[in-house]
Amino acid sequence: MNIAFIGLGNMGGRMAHNLLKAGLTVYGYDLSEVANQHFAEAGGVVCDSPQAAAKQADVVITMLPAAKHVKEVYLGEHGVLETLKAGALCIDSSTIDPKTIQDIAEIAHSKNIKICDAPVSGGTIGAQAGTLTFMVGADESTYQAAKAVLGHMGKNVIHCGDVGAGQIAKICNNLILGISMTAVAEGMALGVKLGIDPKALAGVINTSSGRCWSSDVCNPWPHISENAPASRGYQDGFATQLMLKDLGLAVEAAGQVKQPILLGGMVQQLYQQMCMRGNAHLDFSSIIHQYLPEEA
Amino acid sequence: MNIAFIGLGNMGGRMAHNLLKAGLTVYGYDLSEVANQHFAEAGGVVCDSPQAAAKQADVVITMLPAAKHVKEVYLGEHGVLETLKAGALCIDSSTIDPKTIQDIAEIAHSKNIKICDAPVSGGTIGAQAGTLTFMVGADESTYQAAKAVLGHMGKNVIHCGDVGAGQIAKICNNLILGISMTAVAEGMALGVKLGIDPKALAGVINTSSGRCWSSDVCNPWPHISENAPASRGYQDGFATQLMLKDLGLAVEAAGQVKQPILLGGMVQQLYQQMCMRGNAHLDFSSIIHQYLPEEA
Amino acid sequence: MNIAFIGLGNMGGRMAHNLLKAGLTVYGYDLSEVANQHFAEAGGVVCDSPQAAAKQADVVITMLPAAKHVKEVYLGEHGVLETLKAGALCIDSSTIDPKTIQDIAEIAHSKNIKICDAPVSGGTIGAQAGTLTFMVGADESTYQAAKAVLGHMGKNVIHCGDVGAGQIAKICNNLILGISMTAVAEGMALGVKLGIDPKALAGVINTSSGRCWSSDVCNPWPHISENAPASRGYQDGFATQLMLKDLGLAVEAAGQVKQPILLGGMVQQLYQQMCMRGNAHLDFSSIIHQYLPEEA
Amino acid sequence: MNIAFIGLGNMGGRMAHNLLKAGLTVYGYDLSEVANQHFAEAGGVVCDSPQAAAKQADVVITMLPAAKHVKEVYLGEHGVLETLKAGALCIDSSTIDPKTIQDIAEIAHSKNIKICDAPVSGGTIGAQAGTLTFMVGADESTYQAAKAVLGHMGKNVIHCGDVGAGQIAKICNNLILGISMTAVAEGMALGVKLGIDPKALAGVINTSSGRCWSSDVCNPWPHISENAPASRGYQDGFATQLMLKDLGLAVEAAGQVKQPILLGGMVQQLYQQMCMRGNAHLDFSSIIHQYLPEEA
Repeated sequence: MNIAFIGLGNMGGRMAHNLLKAGLTVYGYDLSEVANQHFAEAGGVVCDSPQAAAKQADVVITMLPAAKHVKEVYLGEHGVLETLKAGALCIDSSTIDPKTIQDIAEIAHSKNIKICDAPVSGGTIGAQAGTLTFMVGADESTYQAAKAVLGHMGKNVIHCGDVGAGQIAKICNNLILGISMTAVAEGMALGVKLGIDPKALAGVINTSSGRCWSSDVCNPWPHISENAPASRGYQDGFATQLMLKDLGLAVEAAGQVKQPILLGGMVQQLYQQMCMRGNAHLDFSSIIHQYLPEEA
Repeated sequence: MNIAFIGLGNMGGRMAHNLLKAGLTVYGYDLSEVANQHFAEAGGVVCDSPQAAAKQADVVITMLPAAKHVKEVYLGEHGVLETLKAGALCIDSSTIDPKTIQDIAEIAHSKNIKICDAPVSGGTIGAQAGTLTFMVGADESTYQAAKAVLGHMGKNVIHCGDVGAGQIAKICNNLILGISMTAVAEGMALGVKLGIDPKALAGVINTSSGRCWSSDVCNPWPHISENAPASRGYQDGFATQLMLKDLGLAVEAAGQVKQPILLGGMVQQLYQQMCMRGNAHLDFSSIIHQYLPEEA
Repeated sequence: MNIAFIGLGNMGGRMAHNLLKAGLTVYGYDLSEVANQHFAEAGGVVCDSPQAAAKQADVVITMLPAAKHVKEVYLGEHGVLETLKAGALCIDSSTIDPKTIQDIAEIAHSKNIKICDAPVSGGTIGAQAGTLTFMVGADESTYQAAKAVLGHMGKNVIHCGDVGAGQIAKICNNLILGISMTAVAEGMALGVKLGIDPKALAGVINTSSGRCWSSDVCNPWPHISENAPASRGYQDGFATQLMLKDLGLAVEAAGQVKQPILLGGMVQQLYQQMCMRGNAHLDFSSIIHQYLPEEA
Repeated sequence: MNIAFIGLGNMGGRMAHNLLKAGLTVYGYDLSEVANQHFAEAGGVVCDSPQAAAKQADVVITMLPAAKHVKEVYLGEHGVLETLKAGALCIDSSTIDPKTIQDIAEIAHSKNIKICDAPVSGGTIGAQAGTLTFMVGADESTYQAAKAVLGHMGKNVIHCGDVGAGQIAKICNNLILGISMTAVAEGMALGVKLGIDPKALAGVINTSSGRCWSSDVCNPWPHISENAPASRGYQDGFATQLMLKDLGLAVEAAGQVKQPILLGGMVQQLYQQMCMRGNAHLDFSSIIHQYLPEEA
């Protein structure tokens, strides 16, 4: 089985590496020469264009920054859908709005090409360790085919529904995540200001109805969750600017279907304020600085 | 050990009943004749006033609607602090702002009376079953003394810190709860509108970073959590108007210490809108109707 | 006509001064010795208590910080309602919630004492110059009686409706003001960031549908309105903490009648954040710092 | 002078009509046959494509629904920039994000084609009557050239700055408008619920610091402004869905430059909720239904 891997950045490069380690042949492409070089050093075959990579492939995997890049690679002037043979499989692991991948899938299906969305969670650490979670949107047989490939790069491959459902699941999860993290930041900061010990407060919350991933795994108050970014200066986590990107996708997708997301619209702007003030690279739990006298 | 129990309503009546079942002598008082009668039928001694009840007591427990009632009972013209002997213990299980109980405690301490705040979670079901959780604010010895009594009415008695810390913990927990419930409602409704199956979406969230009590125990979308109010028409849960009361306490306490609660201020108003539209008695997970074409 | 003036602070002291300049006899009281001394120097008669001042008076004017002080002065142990003779007139110019003055009015009326609320706008400059606007809540004859007195201290005396209506009008006006100021700050900062000249943008807004007092009289961007606080470092205006107080009254009054104020709840918290960061004394148009990379 | 007019819908059709009445030759194009027919009946020359219309023209005017249509008409496969001769003038009166027109302008300038953005306010009534306001973004000479043409369709032609500044001004104005309208709705509804007469309240606001276009010209409470949509069942105004579109542009533009618009993000979602509930065609002052027990 030959694989074409388009987009060899922080995430894609590490994912492709795991495919190579599994003994697969991988044809790769990235705009960055540095990325291509790392890929070559790991045993990958660097190609001149997405199309050149796809020509050799049974499976195409894309890991790109935004919807416009995904559209360009699949549907652009030299798009891969033109070059792939019937029966090929495309897996888009980028995080984009669901409508874009659904539109691309319609065209792919008309050419008898299988396609699924499979956005990830787990970050660069999960990408390196091969422990990513994939949220897959596809029909059953495409899902099974994708799972065989994705299993080399992650440990959970969840079938969320038809094409687009992977993106929907990721967007909705991260919408809830962004809000609940802000909620925990707000509640922790209020409690401490009112005079309670932060560890005692976290103890109550984590055994009560306020409990959430943001309180028990990744608490934004320092030294509540020892392995959380808050305990190391908000470094090396899920960057504020990436949370902002995902909230932007939620707002965009909500707008497409005229669905109000009252708190999401608000929290997007709070994260934007964080980015305006130079905190784009801090872990998104640094939103707690909205609630402290001194900024991050 | 004689106990005075002031406030024999939906919660207090059930709690006092458990003390009687444990064989304790309980002197009770409530403004409602019906409440007094139920208490008498269960074996309690009905008194004419809070002070009359307190005169007989080593321990006073109060379970009242709001801060003004608590102030009146402890500090009013015929308040119980005037009648209690040194060494007595007062336990306030009402949900009020922390400053009120701290102010009362200062006066109690000057009279060598022990006092603690011990707000509860668990609702009328927990009160009846004797399975409440108490969040206690007190010094260590007062906490130990209170624990011996509270153990007859609940199964968890958590020491949160000094006087007021119980209220702080409850307020902050419920602030996070109100926001995260709204977040889950928002995310579930967006996902379903975008086309994903609600069970599949909840499955992803509950194994990912969006996971919270409001998604895995009490999901606001019907028939995700079978025992949740959402699966029985939002009946028999934690009423929207009680969540509104607790969010009001959070806004008030935050105002006292000039601490911004950006999402709390917003969510308070969303719950207020629910109450304006006649949904005060529905479970607070009915906030999902903010995200549906038809109102509750 | 003898007047008792209770509360001789920044506002009340200047207002009482104008009554003295008009040749009236004024009996005054304040907790602050400095305030009393200034009042005496201006020709006022300093009294030992509110009641002592009221004993001599046909008209009582109160200008106090908050509802609890107003209740204490009128209804407290030595309250002025006990000492006033039937037919006396009380004017409360404090800014408080409408319900408090309505409750006091009910008791006053039972003693045949006339009472009205008459909160002001115009700040210390208007108080000094005698150009305040009074928003009066009273029946017609009380309004006419109050107008004769208030005319010495202000140039507009508006009849808003029955007792409480003055407070309602002020609270609602300032609610709209706090939100629209924030809106103008948001729009100006967005426009400038997108590259338009601030004067050109203000020119369009002020001749279009975005026009408001906060854009054409008191624009938060420096040097758009030359006489506005924004053009002098946000000094000497309507302090952020006073706007926060008024938004707090709006949230409280809204809560009493279960009326959602969705933006008000939000803007209250944004102003609270400003105060947390040490900007309580700046003019409320300094809210524009929420939208700038550097804080105030 | 020959004019090409692309987009002959509700707005464009009426605007083109005024050019014809002024005796100009107008070549028109629209996707809708009905629109083309009305245009022909008014004396216009219907063309087969934007390019066909532009071929005859010294001036191209576009009035299109969204950025993608504008891009397609100017830059698409048969875009008008390819066919226009050097020195021609393009006027885009669509309401879109500023970046799109700035990007198009860069290409136009490289071909020595003059271009400006000139979004309008005044609605279909202003378009019909020829009383629109145009907000123009262009260098001085292009502005002067555009003004000569726009004068046939409107009465105010405001020079806002360089290319894009017209869009920026419109977006920022409408952002402030959407928020201040919601603020007035919130304040009016609160006041009336608290018991003040709506006319008395509006009287105070309109002579005080809460005054804005939304309170004195277009008050959302019925029968305050007799000519406002609120006084005729919220019909025939600036539709809720158009306000939602403009708030969407503000959120998008803000995201492009990482500028937080805290209230804008919130108000966008409140308008989206209105649209979800079937009120898209009502005037945007119908946002007051967010504050009433019964929905619109």
